[in-house]
Amino acid sequence: MRKIPVSILGATGAVGQRFVELLINHPYFEIVALSASERNAGKTYAEACNWVLSGSMPEQVKRMKLLPATVDLPGRLAFSALPTGIAHEVEPQLAAAGVTICSNASALRQTPGVPLIIPEINAEHLAMIPLQHSQMGWKGLVVTSPNCTTNGIAMTLKPLDDAFGVEAVFATTMQAISGAGYPGIPSLDIQDNIVPFIAGEEEKIESETNLLLGKLIDGQRVAANITISAHANRVAVMDGHTIALSVKLRHKASPSDASMSLSDFRGSSLVQGLPSAPAQPIIVRSEQNRPQPRRDRDSGAGMSVSVGRIRPCKILDLRMLTVVHNTVRGAAGGSILNAELLCAMGYLESV
Amino acid sequence: MRKIPVSILGATGAVGQRFVELLINHPYFEIVALSASERNAGKTYAEACNWVLSGSMPEQVKRMKLLPATVDLPGRLAFSALPTGIAHEVEPQLAAAGVTICSNASALRQTPGVPLIIPEINAEHLAMIPLQHSQMGWKGLVVTSPNCTTNGIAMTLKPLDDAFGVEAVFATTMQAISGAGYPGIPSLDIQDNIVPFIAGEEEKIESETNLLLGKLIDGQRVAANITISAHANRVAVMDGHTIALSVKLRHKASPSDASMSLSDFRGSSLVQGLPSAPAQPIIVRSEQNRPQPRRDRDSGAGMSVSVGRIRPCKILDLRMLTVVHNTVRGAAGGSILNAELLCAMGYLESV
Amino acid sequence: MRKIPVSILGATGAVGQRFVELLINHPYFEIVALSASERNAGKTYAEACNWVLSGSMPEQVKRMKLLPATVDLPGRLAFSALPTGIAHEVEPQLAAAGVTICSNASALRQTPGVPLIIPEINAEHLAMIPLQHSQMGWKGLVVTSPNCTTNGIAMTLKPLDDAFGVEAVFATTMQAISGAGYPGIPSLDIQDNIVPFIAGEEEKIESETNLLLGKLIDGQRVAANITISAHANRVAVMDGHTIALSVKLRHKASPSDASMSLSDFRGSSLVQGLPSAPAQPIIVRSEQNRPQPRRDRDSGAGMSVSVGRIRPCKILDLRMLTVVHNTVRGAAGGSILNAELLCAMGYLESV
Amino acid sequence: MRKIPVSILGATGAVGQRFVELLINHPYFEIVALSASERNAGKTYAEACNWVLSGSMPEQVKRMKLLPATVDLPGRLAFSALPTGIAHEVEPQLAAAGVTICSNASALRQTPGVPLIIPEINAEHLAMIPLQHSQMGWKGLVVTSPNCTTNGIAMTLKPLDDAFGVEAVFATTMQAISGAGYPGIPSLDIQDNIVPFIAGEEEKIESETNLLLGKLIDGQRVAANITISAHANRVAVMDGHTIALSVKLRHKASPSDASMSLSDFRGSSLVQGLPSAPAQPIIVRSEQNRPQPRRDRDSGAGMSVSVGRIRPCKILDLRMLTVVHNTVRGAAGGSILNAELLCAMGYLESV
Repeated sequence: MRKIPVSILGATGAVGQRFVELLINHPYFEIVALSASERNAGKTYAEACNWVLSGSMPEQVKRMKLLPATVDLPGRLAFSALPTGIAHEVEPQLAAAGVTICSNASALRQTPGVPLIIPEINAEHLAMIPLQHSQMGWKGLVVTSPNCTTNGIAMTLKPLDDAFGVEAVFATTMQAISGAGYPGIPSLDIQDNIVPFIAGEEEKIESETNLLLGKLIDGQRVAANITISAHANRVAVMDGHTIALSVKLRHKASPSDASMSLSDFRGSSLVQGLPSAPAQPIIVRSEQNRPQPRRDRDSGAGMSVSVGRIRPCKILDLRMLTVVHNTVRGAAGGSILNAELLCAMGYLESV
Repeated sequence: MRKIPVSILGATGAVGQRFVELLINHPYFEIVALSASERNAGKTYAEACNWVLSGSMPEQVKRMKLLPATVDLPGRLAFSALPTGIAHEVEPQLAAAGVTICSNASALRQTPGVPLIIPEINAEHLAMIPLQHSQMGWKGLVVTSPNCTTNGIAMTLKPLDDAFGVEAVFATTMQAISGAGYPGIPSLDIQDNIVPFIAGEEEKIESETNLLLGKLIDGQRVAANITISAHANRVAVMDGHTIALSVKLRHKASPSDASMSLSDFRGSSLVQGLPSAPAQPIIVRSEQNRPQPRRDRDSGAGMSVSVGRIRPCKILDLRMLTVVHNTVRGAAGGSILNAELLCAMGYLESV
Repeated sequence: MRKIPVSILGATGAVGQRFVELLINHPYFEIVALSASERNAGKTYAEACNWVLSGSMPEQVKRMKLLPATVDLPGRLAFSALPTGIAHEVEPQLAAAGVTICSNASALRQTPGVPLIIPEINAEHLAMIPLQHSQMGWKGLVVTSPNCTTNGIAMTLKPLDDAFGVEAVFATTMQAISGAGYPGIPSLDIQDNIVPFIAGEEEKIESETNLLLGKLIDGQRVAANITISAHANRVAVMDGHTIALSVKLRHKASPSDASMSLSDFRGSSLVQGLPSAPAQPIIVRSEQNRPQPRRDRDSGAGMSVSVGRIRPCKILDLRMLTVVHNTVRGAAGGSILNAELLCAMGYLESV
Repeated sequence: MRKIPVSILGATGAVGQRFVELLINHPYFEIVALSASERNAGKTYAEACNWVLSGSMPEQVKRMKLLPATVDLPGRLAFSALPTGIAHEVEPQLAAAGVTICSNASALRQTPGVPLIIPEINAEHLAMIPLQHSQMGWKGLVVTSPNCTTNGIAMTLKPLDDAFGVEAVFATTMQAISGAGYPGIPSLDIQDNIVPFIAGEEEKIESETNLLLGKLIDGQRVAANITISAHANRVAVMDGHTIALSVKLRHKASPSDASMSLSDFRGSSLVQGLPSAPAQPIIVRSEQNRPQPRRDRDSGAGMSVSVGRIRPCKILDLRMLTVVHNTVRGAAGGSILNAELLCAMGYLESV
């Protein structure tokens, strides 16, 4: 198979770097362009980018010249790690010009016709794409992936919702510092500390979870109607968001019922063979003190969500704890899996 | 005033050391004895105790000989930082022999007639003492202080309960490592990590909060009936437990109503002049990202609880966040304030 | 005594905040003005300053209007926490206009006639001031305090140099994150990590130590001639720089000789009664695993340097370890002690 | 090739677990036995071992029954992660009985005839084995790997010694918490702190480095004669020891000479094809702020040492900084590479 040429928008940031790392040896995709801000356009990636991940910047991208994020970008598929403000402007321009965009930015997540996708849980929402074409008039296509924390929450809720119906959710998050990008959180703020506020996070959790668990009716997405109350906190963990959940179910379920529905979950068969899809999307831990972010974030190469401490809740029905790798499943890895799904469903030929 | 001679039970542990630190220059109390396990009895405090707090072991205690925790201990008042198992055995023996014990151990917190006290919120529970005398037949007296996390929760709920009635509470805790004593949590477990389980903690929060907010009827404590669902987590913070709360109220209250009732709270006037009582038991922070454990744990010399982010909750009524210094207000400082209250109420003369 | 009105230059930064904290109840000085950048001039301190220290911004300064750092600043004494570039420009202007400046900035540390002072070790260098007046033509006066790490090194070496002669020094530093200001080090760089480079630090250590230990000959400072080789590293510690030292001495000294000369050190008697001077400038720890930054940084209210592990060195003569509080003794506290010394020596009346 | 059956001595500890992790899919070796203390013998590995590494205990070992460390252990090759005291007793017994032991314990590192090996730098020391047989009278064989920190130091010095002659070395270490095993360092000791003492570490660095760089003369190892002065510190880093080095050379060398000799280093050609041997044993970083433990410890799958900041030293000749993964190259990985070398050299058939 000839690899599909792809560009990475916002390639010098922390999520952009993660895209580079995950795509550098990808079986479907080949990085042909890296975009950056005006200020850095024309420089090589090595000159402009302070590589903050472990190890070294891959040799193959060091000498690539950074391009501005314009319609002339090579590659029919673009992964977007753009800051929200810029994504609002650039993503529609590129889509209008015919580019397929798998975006990790929040800019267009709520735009009519733009699917917000976690392949294992709502691949069928891609059927919104004709609506996107008709409403937005783009020749290209935008598919978004959700907020990092929402990823873990929605994946945990999906099998429970399918089996028992989810009505309400308490979610207290303990989020890793890598979720704030680079330079992100000053060490003076987070060392030996907790920052109990993340701008916009609670709102995103509350709205995006309902989009992800929504139903598609006549090509239109109808959001779910789960009442969600979120407390978002930043803690001194590098990678891996931890979320304490209490869940109210329509139909009673014991902890072991819930555990079984979670560990049996595989998602759409379309997804299971994709290169970035983990063998098991949700891993249920039976130890009383797991999952833990440092020890479980890399499960399934960072693409599996780990759930544990499933037990009764005195106010709602069940308590549990979820860990999700926020920059793999919750960011770059999620968008790449979306792109793999688009390939598998034939969307990348058609554009 | 002649100072009251006091002993510290379990003086070599982390909480025992905090008792030493807080009592070394106390206006009412003078340390006359330090107890330790059999193994260490006979050694000097300097020989037996690995001082883990900041700075140095106070000179005054370095050469004190450690005594076993028996009825021959000098001092009519003893502060107990004993491990639960040993406290179960030793505290009743000393109380039987006539010692007044202000205990930070959990052993007797649920024993009939033994008051569980936070002076600002339920000083009137000391009226259980005659019941204790009659039921237990002790010449002495035991007063307990609650679990560290429960301290912060109960103090936050008390003004809300008085003003609006508290019916149900979600509490997700992010607890400091010092709460586990020394050596406590291995660094390999908590560095860059969260441990989402603390044995017995969720149960203590759920039961002790109801004891503290209970009413005294005919000299008997009737526990409150608040439904509490707790998620306890350990995080990489030195001192200061942080608790995300969602609260259901009997009578509706806006965030600003709640904020006012919290910041106006002073507790019993009996307490206000005591040496360890903070000017303001509850400090309401108006910044959107406070309280934070590192920046707020030392408020009121570690005796004030800080509350912030008071906002509506979509499932219950209000969300908020509390920080409490777990080894000052939540442990040694709380027991010392209990002892000061006993003095103020004349209990220490009568024994 | 009427308090001397003082202004703080660069009051909104991390060191500026530490100046506010340490001066708010100072017995000699009263804050009458706070300066900030053009951008913030005119705002109140509460509006412009993100208070990053523990607790809350003191009430007394919240409503003070920020002024630009010009010659119209009220107060004859100014404490400078300006960034180097700005200090280069502003400090000479204010000095020319008659202001006495106690500066923590590095800008003028090497300027002819400008004393670089740690009161306990080289108060006599203030005799350079006539030279400063004649060379610079300023009506006012500038006295500087050294780089944070150099503070700990120079204080440790001074008694050894007096007693045995110091010829060469290896210094490997492990420096706290607060030394980099705010926002300073991104948490993604330092969590679970070491950053083995601090721009300009090794050079400052090597040159400033020699200035501090220099001799005054005919009113001119002649730098010492100690060969210094420094390795500077940033570690995940909040406050407190730790420095591993190996020292070559002219006259042999045993560890206990060195220990005695360090713990006996008191510095000039002029300094001993000053409000910020610690009873003991250097505290020698005898435990085999001390000093430690978290447990020893607050010794002497952050103004004492702690030294330990004094033992032979196979290459030079002695190995030892020093901990200094980098933002108290090593920054704001050091400059305040300089100002107290100026008062004691009558320099503040004469300007 | 039939895999060689191997046992792991001390399999439940932190290094023992790392042996399990690295051997579970090893091309040469197959785990057939796990040993543990008397107390745990008879239990399954899953019952007795609290898995502290990331992810989960491998399925293949969960149900293996733990054996006592006796001569009846199956497998002719044993990897030892025994505590020193027990290794002193058990390793000679097993060796006497004919077992080949690749030990990470320090017990026999100084025993006559027992080679201390880092394959890339002194594979030829295996020629001491006949001496071991004659002196100790063992039917089996013991080969040891050095202390974790010494690994990084000796690997850095070897190419410099070959090219320029190393005469003296200053080494200030900043060592990861995983080096202390589990439970190891209490979090209360190391969070926001440095512990400037590690029992026996400075001595090991000073002696083992000279053994590793020694010469074999007539089948006898003659230690090198490098004067080493070490300062050992524990810092809040999970994995990866960082060492600041100053080196005195017999023949002058510029930083770029040194850099070239380090990055050109490959070690014995015997070693290069071995499964655990990294393509490049020493990676020289050119960035001014690298190597860093978190970003460089995993280079070469944890088997490469990273060196950077090579620059002149004012006292000796060159300064530089080394990072080594302390539990891979510096412990289990190093012993496994030793075993691979024994295979390659035919020692495993002969026993």
